[in-house]
Amino acid sequence: MLQRVDDIVNGFLNDLNDKKVLELYKEITSGKKLRAKLILKIAEQSDEAYVLAAIVEMIQVASLLHDDVIDDADTRRGKKSINALFGDKTAIMLGDILYSKAYYELTSLPEFVAKSISNAVTRLSIGELLDVELSKSFNKNRDRYFDMIDKKTASLIEASAESAAYLCGKDSKKFALYGKNLGLAFQIIDDILDITQDAKTLGKPALHDFKEGKATLPYIYLYDKLSKDDKVKLENLFKKDLTNEEKNWVITNMKQYGAIENSLELARDLAMEAIQSIKEYKNIELEKIIQDMIQREY
Amino acid sequence: MLQRVDDIVNGFLNDLNDKKVLELYKEITSGKKLRAKLILKIAEQSDEAYVLAAIVEMIQVASLLHDDVIDDADTRRGKKSINALFGDKTAIMLGDILYSKAYYELTSLPEFVAKSISNAVTRLSIGELLDVELSKSFNKNRDRYFDMIDKKTASLIEASAESAAYLCGKDSKKFALYGKNLGLAFQIIDDILDITQDAKTLGKPALHDFKEGKATLPYIYLYDKLSKDDKVKLENLFKKDLTNEEKNWVITNMKQYGAIENSLELARDLAMEAIQSIKEYKNIELEKIIQDMIQREY
Repeated sequence: MLQRVDDIVNGFLNDLNDKKVLELYKEITSGKKLRAKLILKIAEQSDEAYVLAAIVEMIQVASLLHDDVIDDADTRRGKKSINALFGDKTAIMLGDILYSKAYYELTSLPEFVAKSISNAVTRLSIGELLDVELSKSFNKNRDRYFDMIDKKTASLIEASAESAAYLCGKDSKKFALYGKNLGLAFQIIDDILDITQDAKTLGKPALHDFKEGKATLPYIYLYDKLSKDDKVKLENLFKKDLTNEEKNWVITNMKQYGAIENSLELARDLAMEAIQSIKEYKNIELEKIIQDMIQREY
Repeated sequence: MLQRVDDIVNGFLNDLNDKKVLELYKEITSGKKLRAKLILKIAEQSDEAYVLAAIVEMIQVASLLHDDVIDDADTRRGKKSINALFGDKTAIMLGDILYSKAYYELTSLPEFVAKSISNAVTRLSIGELLDVELSKSFNKNRDRYFDMIDKKTASLIEASAESAAYLCGKDSKKFALYGKNLGLAFQIIDDILDITQDAKTLGKPALHDFKEGKATLPYIYLYDKLSKDDKVKLENLFKKDLTNEEKNWVITNMKQYGAIENSLELARDLAMEAIQSIKEYKNIELEKIIQDMIQREY
């Protein structure tokens, strides 16, 4: 099923008639294609659903190319990132190529879908900008964190689910809500994994987010619970290269105050809401996507 | 006329409901809006033409934001560039926001136009990638130079003219050719100006292109004409910070061998071809756009 998505993407890229683009694209490590799976399962693998899945995967890859430049990330999915291999310039332009080709292909789909997906990219980019803003100092505000992940991560998943539903005549509003809550839960779990998983499993060092200036939900929870002195201590660790002792202090306190557990609970609640919003469709596979996501390793 | 284009762009950006985006956009120094003028003059200022002009200006600004990151440019139109003011991350994301909003609005125009413009952005981005590639060593190949400027500069002007013609029922193929040749001529003249104009007039130091690794048409002409020893000398100056003496050597030889004059002649030929391809429309204003371009200061 996902092979056909890859084939369509490769067909689109072949249209561009540019060897360099094909060469570069081959260097990108393939991901889990959550959004493509979601689209195909909602829209029941119609031809249009496959085209949409391929377009959304191109957009997702483009956004990651730019995201890696923004985060100065050397790795992506455990392998060297495009910016690390070929420089920021190439990563930015390859992203622009994938985005623009995706939009070109979107014009063949219904206007509702083209609008939903392109609007999601705007929101996603505003979310990235917000992420950069929030990283300047330790953000302790839950609402701002949620606003950011809603835009940065949930928007494209929401638009994918909404568009897929539209293509097969299902209630696009209900599926939008499913996608939005799935996206939020997905990002919270990603943020938890950065804390609980080690470098080897995740492909990047644990507590990397905090060093990068990303005070994710568990850090916000933790800060709320800490004593006045420890609040200061945590603030002082923000954006620093942490020693093992400092990392242990963070993790021990998170465990003690249930910061991980509370975040996980919130992600589970969002996942339950997602399932709830489409329960009338009794689509076990869509519920399974959520189960799989929640049951990733911590 | 161009005020209305600005108003439409501002309206589009207001839709995004994000204060930060509006703040950042205000810091961008406005350009001559060649593409918007072209569209309005071809499509005779219809409402759709104004929307297209606004979309294309957003795309043009987005591409310059990314271009300035790619070129590590500190200035744009004599003022500080967005990447210099707020960092590469902000410039990349603001570019993505403008691009995606432009595509969103494109979905309201005919599919032909949406396809033409989005395809131009792909070509433009491939052109940028090619520009980076060509900058790695001294490119002496005219065809590769023309292929690059065709994609990087002419593609969006071509698509603008083609789309504008489509909107008002004129022959889009003829106007595409007009736009393509106008775009090529425009870039060649820009490349000449980098050599002939000083830092104050142009907002960047003269011979800046060569230092940046851009062997533009006059350098290619010059290289062809030089003696074997001088070829080596020119190659050794490539990508270097030139002394005044070295700059004078380059310029003196360019004059002696007619490298500037030959390049200018080629630009003029292209401009004549552009006028030729739409002469049946007897549109004096469109011919004037070309005259103005050719008669910029050298």
